[in-house]
Order: sequence, then C-alpha cells, then structure tokens
Amino acid sequence: MRLLVIGGSDGGISAALRARELDSDAEVTVVLADAYPNFSICGIPYYVSGDVGDWHDLAHRTRSDIEALGITLLADTTAARVDVAAHQVAATGPHGAALQLGYDRLVLATGAVPARPPIDGLERLGPADGVHLLHTMGDTHGVMASLTSRQVSTAVVVGAGYIGLEMAEALRARGVAVVQMEALPQVLPTLDAELAQLVAEQLAAHGVDVRTATKVTGIDTDGRRLAVRASHVTSDEVLDQEADLVLVVTGVTPDTTLARRAGIDLAGNGAIAVDRRMATNAPDVYAAGDCAVTHHVLLGETYLPLGTTAHKQGRVAGENALGGDRRFAGSLGTQVVKVFDLVAARTGLRDHEAAAAGLHPRTEASVADDHKAYYPGARSIHVRTTGDTESGRLLGVQMIGAIPTGVHKRIDTAATAISCGLEVDQLCDLDLSYTPPLGSPWDVLQAAAQRWVAATTGDSGDGRPVATTGRSRSSGALE
Amino acid sequence: MRLLVIGGSDGGISAALRARELDSDAEVTVVLADAYPNFSICGIPYYVSGDVGDWHDLAHRTRSDIEALGITLLADTTAARVDVAAHQVAATGPHGAALQLGYDRLVLATGAVPARPPIDGLERLGPADGVHLLHTMGDTHGVMASLTSRQVSTAVVVGAGYIGLEMAEALRARGVAVVQMEALPQVLPTLDAELAQLVAEQLAAHGVDVRTATKVTGIDTDGRRLAVRASHVTSDEVLDQEADLVLVVTGVTPDTTLARRAGIDLAGNGAIAVDRRMATNAPDVYAAGDCAVTHHVLLGETYLPLGTTAHKQGRVAGENALGGDRRFAGSLGTQVVKVFDLVAARTGLRDHEAAAAGLHPRTEASVADDHKAYYPGARSIHVRTTGDTESGRLLGVQMIGAIPTGVHKRIDTAATAISCGLEVDQLCDLDLSYTPPLGSPWDVLQAAAQRWVAATTGDSGDGRPVATTGRSRSSGALE
Repeated sequence: MRLLVIGGSDGGISAALRARELDSDAEVTVVLADAYPNFSICGIPYYVSGDVGDWHDLAHRTRSDIEALGITLLADTTAARVDVAAHQVAATGPHGAALQLGYDRLVLATGAVPARPPIDGLERLGPADGVHLLHTMGDTHGVMASLTSRQVSTAVVVGAGYIGLEMAEALRARGVAVVQMEALPQVLPTLDAELAQLVAEQLAAHGVDVRTATKVTGIDTDGRRLAVRASHVTSDEVLDQEADLVLVVTGVTPDTTLARRAGIDLAGNGAIAVDRRMATNAPDVYAAGDCAVTHHVLLGETYLPLGTTAHKQGRVAGENALGGDRRFAGSLGTQVVKVFDLVAARTGLRDHEAAAAGLHPRTEASVADDHKAYYPGARSIHVRTTGDTESGRLLGVQMIGAIPTGVHKRIDTAATAISCGLEVDQLCDLDLSYTPPLGSPWDVLQAAAQRWVAATTGDSGDGRPVATTGRSRSSGALE
Repeated sequence: MRLLVIGGSDGGISAALRARELDSDAEVTVVLADAYPNFSICGIPYYVSGDVGDWHDLAHRTRSDIEALGITLLADTTAARVDVAAHQVAATGPHGAALQLGYDRLVLATGAVPARPPIDGLERLGPADGVHLLHTMGDTHGVMASLTSRQVSTAVVVGAGYIGLEMAEALRARGVAVVQMEALPQVLPTLDAELAQLVAEQLAAHGVDVRTATKVTGIDTDGRRLAVRASHVTSDEVLDQEADLVLVVTGVTPDTTLARRAGIDLAGNGAIAVDRRMATNAPDVYAAGDCAVTHHVLLGETYLPLGTTAHKQGRVAGENALGGDRRFAGSLGTQVVKVFDLVAARTGLRDHEAAAAGLHPRTEASVADDHKAYYPGARSIHVRTTGDTESGRLLGVQMIGAIPTGVHKRIDTAATAISCGLEVDQLCDLDLSYTPPLGSPWDVLQAAAQRWVAATTGDSGDGRPVATTGRSRSSGALE
C-alpha cells in the first residue's frame, strides 16, 4: 500500500499519521511545497508578538519526529499534476528535479490560499515593499524581516477577522501603532454585532485604531513608506494612512488548482467535493482540510476552514485511504479567539445563519458572572443563545469574557450539547460543576438557557399553564 | 393554592422561587429553622478564609429579596410534626410560639446534618471548647468566634473530603497551622488515589500536615487547649496532637426526622424516597435537596447531596407541587474543588463504582497540556477516563490541573457527553474550541479519549484490521 499525501499541514500530516498508526507496513509519503511540515499556522501571531521566541517551536512535530515514524517527507516539492487514471503525480522537487510519484491511495491536503481583495497596488507590491499576505511560515519570515529591516512604527492591518485581530495584538505587543481596517460594519464579523462591539472596545483600549466600514482601495509606496488609501463604505469619505507595513488578512479560499486540473469535482462553494468519508469522486483520491468542503452538523455541506476540522478530516481520510470506513462527524464552526485580555467564542449557528437554513431561530442575550460574586474576581460573561422555536433545539451559542472566565472551554459544553441534539431547556438539566470560586449553582450556560426558554415561552402566548405541559417555562430564578 | 416549604436552603428556596414564577397567586411560605435563608453553604470556607469579608454576602438572595417576590419566610421556626392526612404542619416559632400551618402542597427540604463520627469526647465538647461541626451559618459563626477568642495557632481538621480541604485552605489563609486527619488511605476519597496524591502534595506544599489512614479516636480539653488522639488504621500507632481548634467535617446524613415521624417512606440509603417528579409516597408531599434520594443518570437511585442537585430538585419539586409534570433529569455526581492553586473535578463513575453497578469499566490515565506548549504558561492536566468496554460508552472523567487550565469547565463537556450517552470514541468527533493560548487542536478530553480507545482496542486482541470495522482504533497522534 502506497499512500501519497499532498500537503504537509494539519490535514495532510494527520492523514499520514493516522495511516501510519493503522498499518506500519504502508508506504506513506508526504509532498509539501515548502520546508515547514506540520507547523501550527494558528501559532504565527504568537511568534510575531514575541510570545514564542523561536519559530521552530511552532512545529507540532519536527521533521525528524515525523520521519522517525516511518513517513517519507518530500519537502520543497510542488505537485504539478495528478493523473487519477494512472495513479501518478508529477511533481517538481528541489532544484527543479522532475519527480513522478505513483500511489495506491492519494490524499489531497493542499490547503487554502489567502484571499486577495481587489486593492489597487496589491498585485504589484510585496514583502520587499512591506506589503504582506500571511498564511505560511514563508510569509511569516517575510513579515519578521520587514519588522526588522523597516523599523516599523505604524502598520495597517486590512481585515478584522480572527487572524487580523491576533495580528493587531501581536504588532501592539511589539510597540507598533496599528490601524485596523475592516470593510464590514463590525470587527469579528463571525460574531453578532453586540458582542463584536465589546471586542472593538478591547482593541481600542489597547491602542488599536479600529476603522470599520472602511474599504481599502489602494496601496502605494514612495520606496520607503507605504500609503494606504481607504474609503468609508457608506459615506465614501476617503482615508489616507501612512504605514511602514501593511498586512492583508481577509480570509482564504481553497487551493483546488491541482484537483481541478485532475478533473476532480469541486462543490458549488469552490472547495473539493468530498463525502463524509472524505472521498472525492476520483477513484482512490481523498481530500481533507482547507481545500475540501466542510460537512456541518446543522447545515450539511459548507466551507469552514479551521485547524481543528483539518485535523479531524485528515484523520478520517487517512483511515479510509487504508480501507477504513470512518465518517467525519461534522463541524459546528466552533471558534475561539483571544483578543488581548478578552476571549470570544462561538459554536453552531447565529440567528441569520439559522434562518437562511430554513430553521426558526430566536436569539436571546444574557450576562452572568463566571463565579459567585461574593468570591473575589468575579467577571461578566456575555452570552447569546440561539435556539429553534419549533423544535426547541439549541442551535448556537456565542460568548465573550475575560480570559479567566473560561469561555474557551465553556463553549465546548454548548458544542457538545448541539452535537447531541439537546433542546435549550435540557441545558438546565445538565449536571455541570460548581464551586464558588469558579462557578455558580446554575452555570452561565444554564442561566442563558433559562432566559431563552422564558422569553420563547412568553412569546408563544398560548396561555397554557406550564403545569400541564411536559416542557416548562423558566425564568431568571438563578443564583 | 397554599405551598408550604420546610427548609430555607438551596432545595427549599428553589422550590419556592419556581412556584412563584409559575403562579403569582399561589401562597408560598418557607419555614426555616434558623435566620439564614438562601445562604450559600458552599461559600462558608471563603468567609472563614477572609476572601469574603462580610458573611451577609454569602446569601444568594437577601431575606427582603425573597419577600419582595411575595414569598413568606418564617425564620427561626422549627417544624415539629407533619400530619399528611390533615395537610397540617405543627411548628415552633420564635420565642416558643406554637404554629399550625395548613398546606395544599408540601415540599420537604430539610437538608442534611453533619455526620458525627464515633470520637470519644465529641458528644461532650462543643463550640465553647473549640470543637466544631460545620454545616450551617450558625456553625460558621461559632467557628469564627473560636478563631477570635481562642487565638488559634493550630487546628486539627478531621476529614479530607471537599469541605475538609476547603477548610484546611481557609485556616492556612488565616495563618493557622493545620493538621488534617483522614481515616481513609487518601485525601479526597471521591477521586482515584493517583489524582488524590497530587492534591495531597498541593496541601503539603501549602503547609498542611496531612495524615491519611489516621482515625481520630478521642478529643479532650484541659479547659484551654485541645488534645486530639488518633491512631494509624493499619499500624495502630498512636498520634497525639494538641490544637486550639478542632473541626469535624466527615460528611453528612439526610435529615429525615420529620419525614420519618410523618410516616413518609425512606429509601434503603436512609434518604427520603422520591420519584423523578420529587414526589414522596405521601399525598401532596414532595422532597428535594440533601434530605432526599438522588436519581443518578447511570446508577439510578443513590444519595449524593450536592448544591447543584438541590437547586435542580427544588425547581422540579416547586413546579410539580403546582401541578406540573417535570422530571429531575438526574445527577452525575459532578463535583469540583479548588485546593489552593489546584482544581480537582469529576463527573460520572469511577472504575470501582461502575464495576459495582454491573458495568464493564476500564480506566485510562493521560496527561496533556492545557494549551499549546509553545505559548507561555502551558500547564499539565491529569485526566482519568472511564469507559465501558462493552458498550464503548463514556462513564466518567476525573481531572486535575492548576486553576488557569480550566478543568472546572472542561469537566462540563464530559458531563454533557455522559448525559447524552456518547461513546468514548465519539468525544474525538466533537467540534471543540481551539486557539493556541487556550487549547490544542485535539482537546485534552479528546487526547484522553483517543488513549482510552487505543488501549481498549489493543486489549481486545481480536486481530481484526481496524479498516473493516465501524469503530476505529486510535492512538496518541495528537498535537
């Protein structure tokens, strides 16, 4: 059994490792375009910030760790063409060497490429000018080189999604003045505006100059400094901002060039089409990670490129490539981001996402302390709970709180509940942990659930006394 | 509708509040034996430690908060007899006033009383001598009075369960030398010995002199100082310890005097027998909280007095007393305790508990960092995962880690998974949150689950290649 994996990041390495675990006789080869196998892309901002002193530490495993497991790594090797009928991959190795790689099973884990928004000058300017996209370790070295050589005092970060926010924080940690420009009306557009506002305030409190509803239209250079031109999306007011560094981090698109050329089906959303077994339509070809579609627990097929998902999909692909029959259980789009002292997390669907999927969502806001107020250090957690008014099911939860409030793992309880199909009301029944320094007898999620149920039942107006129904009204009788 | 509730702590007040929510016309009366309605008993150690400056703050709600909701509070009133046929309760109010209280529905929430281990002298000595049980606010005032008047420099804490550990920490915070004596071979007997050992080390590191397998046999006084005599349970070696204060915190037993006298059925475990609706065998009489049996998700009827459970049971009793039909969903014995800088949590069953229940448990230990090691401050979380080798189901999880590792809310994910009947392997499929400063792509619970699955499948020795089975082997391919 010869398993060939194209791509050396989360999806590809997970597939290779899983295959290795299951069959120590399989020949497992990973082709990667750069020299950085199994690097934690999510860790890049923490290397830029200085929290991680040595970029080598960002590797989940070192090259020799992986090779010691009997996996062959072909670094600096670009796969150029897949012949699915012949089970062959043509590639270009170091120094232009032409390689022809045969396989019994192939896993495509080509990942994603950074989106290139239509900004005048972006096609012309690059790292040498202090203009950077950021997705790979190579990109990261470019940013670090600019930070050193250009004596950066001001940076413009284009985009205020997860990576944009983390990079704004990283640059602030280096003493750089940061102007953050986001075309949408709010930062962190994956969260409801009410919560995103708290994130914007946190950014401002740490000296990030946040400009929402601001579309960058052009970047120019005088050979030394950069000039960023932007316009307000509604007023057309023009903003000119000088900078020493511009970072464009406005999302990614799946890298499907190889798959497309090989005649492998893509989904309507542009990612490689795979079933729940991570199999493509081509015989013996699987795909995993940011290049492939994401099966969502509540939405079905979508595209939600996340490291956690890539790991899981890779593991499924690696197992099935060896003849297994494992299904990817599905994503809930669970995400968390640390923004200075604040943590914002979400899982499942927001109101408009659920409505677009034909569900009947209702979203309720609530605020509760992370632990009993009498014990020192209690901090607020802001929650938005989305449930389906017809089925009563929990559809999504968003949370924001300071780091010690633990929202990053509180969201996991919600993710588990959604995965298991719990009704919002059933959250109140869960036996969750409590001790006064760390919680409350009714957990924050349960307080939020009670509020949702009370509001929803109140709205139903059916006038039936709760006493005669199986489901019950609840209200804020919490401590 | 006249609802009478006997007991003003978590179970009783929750029942009263729920009834009030559902029917603003109901007459809701709560009888409580002392003057402290709705106090957070779990918070007592934090008042003793000084973390909570004013004991009034330990109230979940003030008396006037409760009365403002239209609930009548009869404080300092002891219910003496329930006539279930006549729907009457005889009570003694302040200054010995005899009261006769009629009801349409009755909720017994009489709580528990501290266990009195067979220690010579314990029946004779009391708060005036510096010997204390600790369960009520009255007891707490007694302890505080002793601490002040006796110039306590050394205390013996008898018992090393949750409260014992919290009180040891509280006394250390006041600069008191603490000798902690536990008859069982380990501290925190509700956790496996391997994890309890970490707790014992934490206690020792903070100056608590821990003596396990040490049974206190007698307490004596010379009128000023106390002499505690204990013996090692296996060697019979005798230990004599002088102290200024002795705290006996060795668990509780349900307070069922009133129910028993009224002819209400008790369960084999000694608590008031109730069904899932919290109804006793007597007409119109419900029971909730520490006086009643606990329905356990995995074990059925048991006795596990916990504040979280009392709140939930009270809410169910209050709703059903008004004609509702809500079921108590069941406890998992989810518990968490902070011991200095460490947090220990558990949910579900431990190995021997599952075996005793006729299940086929296997328990695997694992250790993982709370977040990516490259980001500063990563700390270990020790996990013990118990699953059923026949059904594959998750039965229990125990966890220990430093406060910032968030084990107190990580345990909730496990509790939710157990409640929903997930298999251990299915934990690996959950879409849990990840960002490098706060987690890993495979969550700690998922790493633990993979280890359990790998060990369990390895043991099965059936030789089938995983590729042909629906369930899969896993191993530690985690990052």
